[in-house]
Amino acid sequence: VPISGFPELLPSQRFVELAVLDSLRTSFELHGFAPLETPAVETVDTLLGKGEVDKEVYVLSRLHAGEEDADPGLGLRYDLTVPFARFVVENAGHLQFPFRRYQIQPVWRGERPQAGRYRQFTQADIDIVGQGELPFHHDVEVARVMAEALSHLDFLPPARIQINNRRLIEGFYRGLGATDPAAVMRVIDKLDKLPYDTILALLVTDAGLTDQQAATALALAEIRTSDTSFLDAVKALGVTHELLTQGLDELTAVIDGCAPIAAASGGRVTVEADLRIARGLDYYTGTVFETRLTGHESLGSICSGGRYDSLASDGRTTYPGVGISFGLSRTIVPLLLSGMLAASRSVPSVVLVALENEDSRSTSDDIAQALRARGIPTEVAASPHKFGKQIRYAERRGIPFVWFPGTNEVKDIRSGDQKAADPAAWTPPTADLKPQVLTKALPTREGTQ
Amino acid sequence: VPISGFPELLPSQRFVELAVLDSLRTSFELHGFAPLETPAVETVDTLLGKGEVDKEVYVLSRLHAGEEDADPGLGLRYDLTVPFARFVVENAGHLQFPFRRYQIQPVWRGERPQAGRYRQFTQADIDIVGQGELPFHHDVEVARVMAEALSHLDFLPPARIQINNRRLIEGFYRGLGATDPAAVMRVIDKLDKLPYDTILALLVTDAGLTDQQAATALALAEIRTSDTSFLDAVKALGVTHELLTQGLDELTAVIDGCAPIAAASGGRVTVEADLRIARGLDYYTGTVFETRLTGHESLGSICSGGRYDSLASDGRTTYPGVGISFGLSRTIVPLLLSGMLAASRSVPSVVLVALENEDSRSTSDDIAQALRARGIPTEVAASPHKFGKQIRYAERRGIPFVWFPGTNEVKDIRSGDQKAADPAAWTPPTADLKPQVLTKALPTREGTQ
Repeated sequence: VPISGFPELLPSQRFVELAVLDSLRTSFELHGFAPLETPAVETVDTLLGKGEVDKEVYVLSRLHAGEEDADPGLGLRYDLTVPFARFVVENAGHLQFPFRRYQIQPVWRGERPQAGRYRQFTQADIDIVGQGELPFHHDVEVARVMAEALSHLDFLPPARIQINNRRLIEGFYRGLGATDPAAVMRVIDKLDKLPYDTILALLVTDAGLTDQQAATALALAEIRTSDTSFLDAVKALGVTHELLTQGLDELTAVIDGCAPIAAASGGRVTVEADLRIARGLDYYTGTVFETRLTGHESLGSICSGGRYDSLASDGRTTYPGVGISFGLSRTIVPLLLSGMLAASRSVPSVVLVALENEDSRSTSDDIAQALRARGIPTEVAASPHKFGKQIRYAERRGIPFVWFPGTNEVKDIRSGDQKAADPAAWTPPTADLKPQVLTKALPTREGTQ
Repeated sequence: VPISGFPELLPSQRFVELAVLDSLRTSFELHGFAPLETPAVETVDTLLGKGEVDKEVYVLSRLHAGEEDADPGLGLRYDLTVPFARFVVENAGHLQFPFRRYQIQPVWRGERPQAGRYRQFTQADIDIVGQGELPFHHDVEVARVMAEALSHLDFLPPARIQINNRRLIEGFYRGLGATDPAAVMRVIDKLDKLPYDTILALLVTDAGLTDQQAATALALAEIRTSDTSFLDAVKALGVTHELLTQGLDELTAVIDGCAPIAAASGGRVTVEADLRIARGLDYYTGTVFETRLTGHESLGSICSGGRYDSLASDGRTTYPGVGISFGLSRTIVPLLLSGMLAASRSVPSVVLVALENEDSRSTSDDIAQALRARGIPTEVAASPHKFGKQIRYAERRGIPFVWFPGTNEVKDIRSGDQKAADPAAWTPPTADLKPQVLTKALPTREGTQ
C-alpha cells in the first residue's frame, strides 16, 4: 500500500515530469542561473532559525543509535530557501555576486496524513542574491525568467502571474493615515475567505481605520489590471506617499518588463498587477508574486515569491535577494493523476528490433546498436515469439516502430506503413524521438490526442 | 559548518555531476530503460523486510507530533533496490515485463559521523526484472549497457569491470567435494584482507576441505583473464560439475558480449573474468559484477550488481532480476573535492552582454534575448561599470565571451579576439555552449587543462 502523502509516478508519468524538469533547466540556464543542490538534511537549528516554529519538520534519528550517540539534531528541509540562505553564508567566499541559482529538489513536511496533502513534493526555485546590495532591476529579471519558463511549459493550462509590491500597499496605507499598516495588511489578506462587509468592519475594529479609510483600502485591493493602467486607478483614490510612489514605479517596471514575454506566449502566460496580493507579513519587502492556472484555481498559487531585503545574514554582511518558487509536484501531480497529462509511451524506446530466433539475437543486437549509435533509443525483443506477438509487445509499451531484421524493413505500427530501411541511415520523425506529452480535456486548449 | 557526511557541491562542481547524470540517462534510455523515481521514504517494515537489520537506517519523526500521533514507522531508503522491489510488487498490474528501469537518486545511511563516510550519496541503478522468469540473455544486456555507459564518461579514470558467476564457483566447490560450498565462499571472500596461508588454513578448519581441495579452491580464485581463456584455466584444475558447466557458459556469454564495447572504448573500459568475485553470500544467484577505477582502487568497487532469482515476491509470483548499481557520489565526489575533476566555469552563461549605462539596459536585454532564443545562455552585466571591470566580472565566472552593445562586437576574453557580430546570427563554438569538464593529473590519461 502506498504511503499517504508520498506520490509515486509510473514511468509514463515520470516522462512528463522529466519534460517539465528539462524545460525548466533549459530556461533557467539560458538566463545564466547556476545549478545548485543541497543535501536533504539540515540541522534542526538551521531549519527553525527563521522562527518558523509552526513548520511541520521531520527530524531524523538513527534506528540503531546507542546510548553513546547524542541526538544529532538533523531534520529534512521543508523548503529550498532556508538551505539556500545557509549555503550562501557558508560559501560566500567562493561565490560571485550577484549570484543566480536555480534549485529543483524535493522538500518534506511532517504533516499528519490526509487526502491531497503531500508530505514530499518537488519545488523549482530561482533566486538572485546580492552581497550587501541588489539593484531593483533583478526583480524584473526573475519575473521575466519565470514567465518565460512557464510559457515554455506549453502542455500546462494557461498561467496567470499576479504581481504586487509591498512598498506600494504599505505606502498607500500610510498615506491614507493608517497608524498600523501591518494590521491593515493582515485584514486585507483575508479577502479571499471573508465577505466584503466583514473585511470592512474588521478594518475599523482591528486595524483602526475610519469607515472612509477602510473603503479606500478595500478599493485599492480590488484593483487588478493586465497593463499599467493600475497607475490611474490608484491615482484616482487620491492617496500620496513617498513609499507609494516608489512601489508604483517598481510595479510598473515589472509589469512593463514582462509584457513582451506574455505577448509572445500565445496566451499561455498572462501577467497582471493585482493589488490584493501580499504574501504573508514579515518576509517580503518589495515585489511579490503569485500565479494561478486558469481552470485549476483550486491548486492555489503554483508559483510564488518576491523581494526580501535580507535573505541571509552572517551578522556583518546582509544578503538581499529576489526569487520565485514553482511548485512542480503541486502543479503536475494532480494533472497526472487525473489523466489530463500523460506520455505517449511507457519506455524511451523508439524502435523494437524483432527477433527471428534465439540464434540470431546478435543480428538483432547489431541493428539496435547501429540505431543507438545515432541517438535512437532501441530495444531488442525479449523472446523470439511470432511477429504478431512481438508487435503487440511494442504496442503495449507504446513503441512506435518495429524493425524486422530478416528483411531489414521497419514498420510504423500506428499507420501500418512498412518499408525497407538501413540501420545506419534510417531516422524516425523528430517528434517520435522522445515520448510526447499528451494533454486531454484541458479546459482552454485543445488536447493533442 | 557543513554537516559531516552530507557532501555539498558548488555550482562549478555540480556542472560535472550534471554531465555525469546526463550521460548516464542518455546511455540508459538508448537501451530502453524507463525512468523511475521513488519517494525518499519507505515504511520501516519495508526497509527491514529483507532481514537487513544491520543497515543504519534513518527513521523519521514529526517535530510537533502530539500524543495522538502514533509512530508512523517511516524511514529513509538506504539503497534503491528495496524501493524498486516494493514498487514492482505494488505496480505489477501496470507494468510490462520484462521491465527495464533506471533510477538515479540519493540514499541515506544513518552512520556515525566519520571522515570519508557519506550519510547521503547518489546511486545510479539499472535493473531488468521479469514476472516469473527472466531469460539469461538479460545478464549480458545489463553488463553491456553499464559498460557502454561507463565508456561514455570519458573524463573518469579507466574502469575495470570484473565479472564472475555464482553458479560457477558453487559448482566448482561441489565438484571438488565440498559439503558446505557457502562456508568455502565465506573464507575465499576474505582473500583481499588475509594472507594466502591463512586462507588456506581456514579452508581446512572452517570449510572442511582437505589441503589439496583448499589449494584447488584457491587456484580457482586466482584466475583472472581479460578474455574467455579462463575456460582453459578452470578446465586445467580438473573439476567437473553440472552447475560449474552452466556457470562457465554464462560467464563466457557475458565476457564475449562485453568484448566489443571494451574494444570500442579506447581503453576507457576493460572487462575481465575475475573468479574471486562473490559479492556476499545470500543475494545473488548467477552473474556477479564489480568495478574498479584504475589508479583509484581505494574507492573500492564503484559499480556492482548481479543476478538475483528473487528480486521481489508477492507470495504467489516471484520476480527474478538482474541489475547493476553505479555509486555516482562515491566515484565523483572524491575526484571533485581533490580537484581532479572541475568545470570550465561556475555559471551556464556563454556570453556576458556589457551594459553601457542603466538607461540602455533594454538594448543589452534585447541582445541577450536574441542569443537565448537560439539556445545560447546569456546574462547581462549587473551594473554599468567601466568595460574593464565588466570583463573581469566575466573572467571571474569563466564566461568566455563579452558582447559590447554599442558597436555590436563580441570578444573572446581568453584569446582577446574581438569582432563584429549579429545577435541574430552569431554562434559560439559548440564546445563553449556548455561548461566543459576539465581533468587534472589523472594517472593514466592526459588532462585537458
